[in-house]
Amino acid sequence: MRLRKIKGALNKLIANEKYYINNPIDHRGKWVEVFNNSNPIHIEIGCGKGKFITTMALNNPNINFIAIEKYDSVLLRASELSLNYDLNNLKLVLLDAENILDVFEKNEVDLIYLNFSDPWPKKRYYKRRLTAPGYLEKYAVILKNGGAIYQKTDNRSLFEYSIENFCNEGWLLNNVSLDLHNDQFEGNVTTEFEEKWSKLGPIYRLEARKRKEE
Amino acid sequence: MRLRKIKGALNKLIANEKYYINNPIDHRGKWVEVFNNSNPIHIEIGCGKGKFITTMALNNPNINFIAIEKYDSVLLRASELSLNYDLNNLKLVLLDAENILDVFEKNEVDLIYLNFSDPWPKKRYYKRRLTAPGYLEKYAVILKNGGAIYQKTDNRSLFEYSIENFCNEGWLLNNVSLDLHNDQFEGNVTTEFEEKWSKLGPIYRLEARKRKEE
Repeated sequence: MRLRKIKGALNKLIANEKYYINNPIDHRGKWVEVFNNSNPIHIEIGCGKGKFITTMALNNPNINFIAIEKYDSVLLRASELSLNYDLNNLKLVLLDAENILDVFEKNEVDLIYLNFSDPWPKKRYYKRRLTAPGYLEKYAVILKNGGAIYQKTDNRSLFEYSIENFCNEGWLLNNVSLDLHNDQFEGNVTTEFEEKWSKLGPIYRLEARKRKEE
Repeated sequence: MRLRKIKGALNKLIANEKYYINNPIDHRGKWVEVFNNSNPIHIEIGCGKGKFITTMALNNPNINFIAIEKYDSVLLRASELSLNYDLNNLKLVLLDAENILDVFEKNEVDLIYLNFSDPWPKKRYYKRRLTAPGYLEKYAVILKNGGAIYQKTDNRSLFEYSIENFCNEGWLLNNVSLDLHNDQFEGNVTTEFEEKWSKLGPIYRLEARKRKEE
């Protein structure tokens, strides 16, 4: 998601002391201490304006959520949204997914959400897609054994690419839906993007599970 | 595909001596002799009225095609179509895919086509779907190393199920298309079914490759 650059966005994020984590690298392997409990950790990579993860945090008090976003002007919108609530199970992190291994230790994460990630439509930029093999390798490191990735997108080319990569890189696929809003799937929490675009075409969704280590 | 039962269909098939193979079990491991050459063997399981495989045989004289169909009244339509041509690279076989191992030897087949297979919509019949794990195991036996299955369908549930099974049973996926007629894909040979139904929704397609034996 791209937004107009907001002046002073980073300073405004830092001022949100309740939710914003200014030094995520310091918590690598120690997110349990940040939340002060050992509940499962779910992260959303590319949280956009934060509607999805904020709703998830409200609905699931026994899960810890970390919203990750690359652009400070975008994360600021999630930050502003978070301030409407009093959540102890949500944190916001400004991070390029490229550097995800700096912030999470091996086996530290239970679930990764990829919602409506940038489709990078030109073939020469496919490696920037968040389901490129290089990213999947990193996700496999930070996910626990049996941990999963839940992906949603409206972009056909991105979803075709993702199915192939998950399969060919050795992940297990479950609950593949080629038309989420018309398949039987309960408890879907929508994103802003999903509400806006789902009337124009199908929403695709899958669950990819890391194979257990032998 | 279901058709009205045609009286005497089997006898009419047997009368088509050029194309119909009455005793396919006898040729197990020896299809090279039937075609009198060692060209690649492509089979279509569930050939319906035969438009797809007849067109393929016409367009690809250096590939041997075997059309397989479970219902004699349906195969008869393919038989009648075949008689319009003088093809040495097409044979017709009446067979339940369940018994495919009786007709082909290990590593005897290069490519399997599954076009618009019966979707068996009720969950208790999923195991009858031609991409059920039990069938995939059999296909893996008769396919050469590096051999592939090309699947097309308009049925969303069947395709979701197929993606999951191929992936989780260890096949590699390539050229996954979630809207064949709007993706860039050259040389698509359509079936009767495809021409009739593709205006109502997307046609799905994938290529699943058998992993090389270690």
